[in-house]
Amino acid sequence: MTHYYNGFPQSDRDEKLDMVNVDELEERVKQVMPEGAYYYIASGSENEWTWRNNTAAFNHYQIIPRALTNMDNPSTETEFMGMKLKTPIMISPIACHGIAHMDAEVATQKGAAAAGALFASSTYANKSVEDIAAAAPDAPRFFQLYLSKDWEFNRMVFDAIKKAGYKGIFLTVDALISGYREANLRTNFTYPVPLDFFTRYLGGKGEGQSVAQMYASSAQKIGPDDVRRIKEESGLPVIVKGVMCAEDAYLAIGAGADGVYVTNHGGREVDTAPATIDVLPEVVKAVNHRVPVIFDSGVRRGSHIFKALAMGADLVGIGRPYLYGLALGGAKGVQSVIEELNEELIINMQLTGCKTIEDVKHARIDHIRYTADN
Amino acid sequence: MTHYYNGFPQSDRDEKLDMVNVDELEERVKQVMPEGAYYYIASGSENEWTWRNNTAAFNHYQIIPRALTNMDNPSTETEFMGMKLKTPIMISPIACHGIAHMDAEVATQKGAAAAGALFASSTYANKSVEDIAAAAPDAPRFFQLYLSKDWEFNRMVFDAIKKAGYKGIFLTVDALISGYREANLRTNFTYPVPLDFFTRYLGGKGEGQSVAQMYASSAQKIGPDDVRRIKEESGLPVIVKGVMCAEDAYLAIGAGADGVYVTNHGGREVDTAPATIDVLPEVVKAVNHRVPVIFDSGVRRGSHIFKALAMGADLVGIGRPYLYGLALGGAKGVQSVIEELNEELIINMQLTGCKTIEDVKHARIDHIRYTADN
Amino acid sequence: MTHYYNGFPQSDRDEKLDMVNVDELEERVKQVMPEGAYYYIASGSENEWTWRNNTAAFNHYQIIPRALTNMDNPSTETEFMGMKLKTPIMISPIACHGIAHMDAEVATQKGAAAAGALFASSTYANKSVEDIAAAAPDAPRFFQLYLSKDWEFNRMVFDAIKKAGYKGIFLTVDALISGYREANLRTNFTYPVPLDFFTRYLGGKGEGQSVAQMYASSAQKIGPDDVRRIKEESGLPVIVKGVMCAEDAYLAIGAGADGVYVTNHGGREVDTAPATIDVLPEVVKAVNHRVPVIFDSGVRRGSHIFKALAMGADLVGIGRPYLYGLALGGAKGVQSVIEELNEELIINMQLTGCKTIEDVKHARIDHIRYTADN
Amino acid sequence: MTHYYNGFPQSDRDEKLDMVNVDELEERVKQVMPEGAYYYIASGSENEWTWRNNTAAFNHYQIIPRALTNMDNPSTETEFMGMKLKTPIMISPIACHGIAHMDAEVATQKGAAAAGALFASSTYANKSVEDIAAAAPDAPRFFQLYLSKDWEFNRMVFDAIKKAGYKGIFLTVDALISGYREANLRTNFTYPVPLDFFTRYLGGKGEGQSVAQMYASSAQKIGPDDVRRIKEESGLPVIVKGVMCAEDAYLAIGAGADGVYVTNHGGREVDTAPATIDVLPEVVKAVNHRVPVIFDSGVRRGSHIFKALAMGADLVGIGRPYLYGLALGGAKGVQSVIEELNEELIINMQLTGCKTIEDVKHARIDHIRYTADN
Repeated sequence: MTHYYNGFPQSDRDEKLDMVNVDELEERVKQVMPEGAYYYIASGSENEWTWRNNTAAFNHYQIIPRALTNMDNPSTETEFMGMKLKTPIMISPIACHGIAHMDAEVATQKGAAAAGALFASSTYANKSVEDIAAAAPDAPRFFQLYLSKDWEFNRMVFDAIKKAGYKGIFLTVDALISGYREANLRTNFTYPVPLDFFTRYLGGKGEGQSVAQMYASSAQKIGPDDVRRIKEESGLPVIVKGVMCAEDAYLAIGAGADGVYVTNHGGREVDTAPATIDVLPEVVKAVNHRVPVIFDSGVRRGSHIFKALAMGADLVGIGRPYLYGLALGGAKGVQSVIEELNEELIINMQLTGCKTIEDVKHARIDHIRYTADN
Repeated sequence: MTHYYNGFPQSDRDEKLDMVNVDELEERVKQVMPEGAYYYIASGSENEWTWRNNTAAFNHYQIIPRALTNMDNPSTETEFMGMKLKTPIMISPIACHGIAHMDAEVATQKGAAAAGALFASSTYANKSVEDIAAAAPDAPRFFQLYLSKDWEFNRMVFDAIKKAGYKGIFLTVDALISGYREANLRTNFTYPVPLDFFTRYLGGKGEGQSVAQMYASSAQKIGPDDVRRIKEESGLPVIVKGVMCAEDAYLAIGAGADGVYVTNHGGREVDTAPATIDVLPEVVKAVNHRVPVIFDSGVRRGSHIFKALAMGADLVGIGRPYLYGLALGGAKGVQSVIEELNEELIINMQLTGCKTIEDVKHARIDHIRYTADN
Repeated sequence: MTHYYNGFPQSDRDEKLDMVNVDELEERVKQVMPEGAYYYIASGSENEWTWRNNTAAFNHYQIIPRALTNMDNPSTETEFMGMKLKTPIMISPIACHGIAHMDAEVATQKGAAAAGALFASSTYANKSVEDIAAAAPDAPRFFQLYLSKDWEFNRMVFDAIKKAGYKGIFLTVDALISGYREANLRTNFTYPVPLDFFTRYLGGKGEGQSVAQMYASSAQKIGPDDVRRIKEESGLPVIVKGVMCAEDAYLAIGAGADGVYVTNHGGREVDTAPATIDVLPEVVKAVNHRVPVIFDSGVRRGSHIFKALAMGADLVGIGRPYLYGLALGGAKGVQSVIEELNEELIINMQLTGCKTIEDVKHARIDHIRYTADN
Repeated sequence: MTHYYNGFPQSDRDEKLDMVNVDELEERVKQVMPEGAYYYIASGSENEWTWRNNTAAFNHYQIIPRALTNMDNPSTETEFMGMKLKTPIMISPIACHGIAHMDAEVATQKGAAAAGALFASSTYANKSVEDIAAAAPDAPRFFQLYLSKDWEFNRMVFDAIKKAGYKGIFLTVDALISGYREANLRTNFTYPVPLDFFTRYLGGKGEGQSVAQMYASSAQKIGPDDVRRIKEESGLPVIVKGVMCAEDAYLAIGAGADGVYVTNHGGREVDTAPATIDVLPEVVKAVNHRVPVIFDSGVRRGSHIFKALAMGADLVGIGRPYLYGLALGGAKGVQSVIEELNEELIINMQLTGCKTIEDVKHARIDHIRYTADN
């Protein structure tokens, strides 16, 4: 953390990370990042029940090792909406990567591209979509949209991302206001680095805003008509992000969504919402292969990715772990995190006889219902 | 705690409280309140299993976040038995608010009225019902009745509360003797401030009595005929407080009760009684909309209130949290506690697409059965 | 602990005990009793899973508080096989009360009689059955039999107990060898005080024997024919102690048993045997009112006694708690323990509308299945 | 640890061990063994969930004590594929016993033979199969095979074990690559002592290799045809080791396997694989007595062995405990561990009325579903 933006320290590193698992990065980041920024990342809402259970609930499901499988050298290559990817691991959108690194989303995009993973950048990115695209021109990327109440702003965004070659939109509908995040209240957290789209639209900087203020500028009232309008005005596929039940999967598909994204925003919105892995089967059943399903929240292990795929997800996003990688190692740190998880995934594939990601999607998962804390 | 009644320190504050959640008030009160009084509040009976599980069991139920809800600005206004309320949060009856504040129930009533919440004062209040009523003449209030063996006493009470404009009676039937509260035994707790109705009836003061002694003066033997007699003699609606199963919901309604109140007295009576949230569905089904349902015990979060409403309650009472608010901030402290919880409730409403309290009553709650300690 | 038998310290007290609950006695006894003796009592077999769960499993069951019950002044009087008892609490047999008190079983019998509870003395008692009987001539008592391989010994026992007015026999069949009790191995525990029946039969003293040695002298091979022979030779009712499943309830009744006794020997025999409260319903259903059912293991609260009765037991035994009472207060200590638990039982009866023990047997118990550690 | 091999300390003891249970050996080994070697043994893969739950899950099942059983002196003798054994406890294969003792598998074989237990030595043994066989010429033994990619190597192995009188082969199919064992990564563990089969085949020594390197030389791609080829080329019975579901039991039997071996490699391969005891019933049902079933992973108690047998296993393997015994007491230490567990098994047999191992296989086990941590 040797670079400073207006007094806020940012990492300037670009190096591979030595790690045994991605969990251990959290403690290392805690040592170097300002407290408010650290807890902005490393916390959930209210009592953080959902935050904790997103990860713990993976233990509700057991992977069955398989015998006499007659295969070796499994491959994690996959295809998603026409994009060829080296891994089903996706970089989930997070606001303001500048709290971790001076190169912010530009570095993240480089790291994701090096690892062959899909990158989704946020409406609240520090870096411009043009700079992000320039960081890895041939890599596929998606855009996460916080719809604004102001459609002039929305149109500016659509124009920019289309020109920058983004492949589609994740429309966030699960975080229309900020969840009750106590850590932010305790530290009086505000975004320390300006957010590009706000800077260019407002002529101001967008920094120094609290999370609640940011949310206030975006639309709370979003319905099926908005999905249709965004598709029409942007000309891009729209995936609805924040689907946690069958009803809303139907609603999204009925509204023309090109995919559904199962997430509870990493446990940062409704506390005591179910863990995402516990609702994934219901959503997958409702979707019934009509559109792709993306999954995130709580993923920290290759076995978590394996389970989400085996239970019906097409891509599995990670959040906090890559931001820790970014803070500690820049683009190469992000790449290290993805590759660590991908390596763990490959081991699980070999030991369950899955040669391809398609095989993983048909792997047997049991639900013996151990208690969550085991 | 700068005012003293016969050597017992009472708060004289009247100020808004800065808090991130209501749980953190408990520790702050522990620092300033005499030990016996503190543990009189902050304890349950026997091994305190029910006390702990009242709160923990809310985690048995999950709130499903909803997508594409097309709404904003949810409102917590509600109506209960003809009373317009700003919030479904109710101030549950607790004896002897003077252990927390020199203005006792008068301050609590002011705070509740400021927050637009229904206030229920206890038979064992320190302040007179006339003074309580004068504190907020236009605010609605209920009276919690410990029926006396002495009907002359009961009639005195009925007359007084009717004249003071109380809207109805909560007839306590779940605490006809004191539960086995070890904390009170350990500290030899006695009420340090006289209780108005005893003072005026006995000509004595009512202070210096143990909890067990207080209970001894009230009736242990209460049946359906008593409900009918209280209704007749008071001319007020009677809601039976302490219904924990379908059988007793039928019994109460059969006896003419105007409502049922699901509570286990905050875990202070039968230890290993179920958590109230776990029996609420059974009672609600038995009641079948014939009369309103009130709920309390263990409520510490907006999400708890959301769940109780979604599972069939019409009003949701809080107890210990507001008494902590009273001890730390007087009337404004009580108001702060209610508003904090109401704010948390509003966030949950927005994120689940509930524009009104009526919408909350139809929200989807799942019962994935995590272990209680998660 | 001011009296010494051959260097082993024994209590000589006879005083009422001040306690808030019986659990707190354990720590007090630990301070005064030699380590080997203390852990002989306060331990179970193997990993002590059953020992811990005997108590914890009571939390699997919830007591439903009842409303509008129209009763007061509940009574714990009950009748068992023609004996009038003031309480359904029974003093379960334990060997060698002399590890706790110089008056051993004589003091225990006095305390039990004062509290109106049935006392069962062990084959391995230090005091003679004549002295025990003389301590409370009018009180009812049972005899716990470790059947010897030597029928001459057995006949001596039958003669003695019949003459001493014992009302019946508990035939132990769940402890035919010692469970794997690690505490005894660690402390090299041996009985420090001679056991009367061995002294009189062997002419020796019976002291200085390990638990495993004691078991070696008793019969391991006991079948239905032994039940018939004991009944015939003793002329007394025989209750089979150690029935943990329906199959064995049928077997015992088929063999002519006059009752079944559900126990796992306080978690001292088969580790990971179920908690007794978890198997009680199966046994009760199999017995189907043909003979009485006795229950013990893990009882520490009035609510535990309430649950065992409500789930079908006729008497509920306590073990370790009364031995702690004996060590700390002699006869009056035993009485204090029984009365403390009986008082807790009475509170539960009032709050659930149970006027009599017969009412308790029809009380509603729920099985919401909280985790055992809540 | 007074002998050194190239600077690596090895035990040279040969003495009976005093122990109360086998768990306590782990701490004693930790004091004397180099850290890398210790954690190579005492760890699992990823978050070690499966490693912990292999043992904890035995508590999902309850042993029912039995009454009036009319038996004594139970015997643990059993027969397996024509071999007479004094105990159903088996010595599961573990690589490189030289990390524990200078005599490595030779000592283990002596200890196993003394206790009358079947010994299975690993492809990665330090000692030659000829030396192992010479250590106890009349004792039965099996060979655990890591199939090599190089069939010349495999044939060398088959020849050697046949000449050395091995009775059959456990074909490992659950560990075709190393699980993600973080402890080994943290300590940079490599095998400190050469492995005989590699030494003789390669002319080199085989020491100084990491676990991942060792696995690289063995075949990852193993299918039903390999089972048939191994049977044909070796002329020995082949039991497939690593069957965790019904599907693979059918697959193995279809491929001609002479038995199935339920194991998850002691929690060292797929983390969050189910505990073996939780999948045993499914495999046993699929096998339907067509071939024998072997079980291991997590066994630390006589009650665990009892449960595995009662739930359908024919032999029950132990791993880490005997290696600890080897490190602390050599051959006699191994014997002590087996005899300690066998003694615990005998106590459970007496208390459940099981005279023989065949009786154990028909004992009643309940599945009350306590939480795993109770």
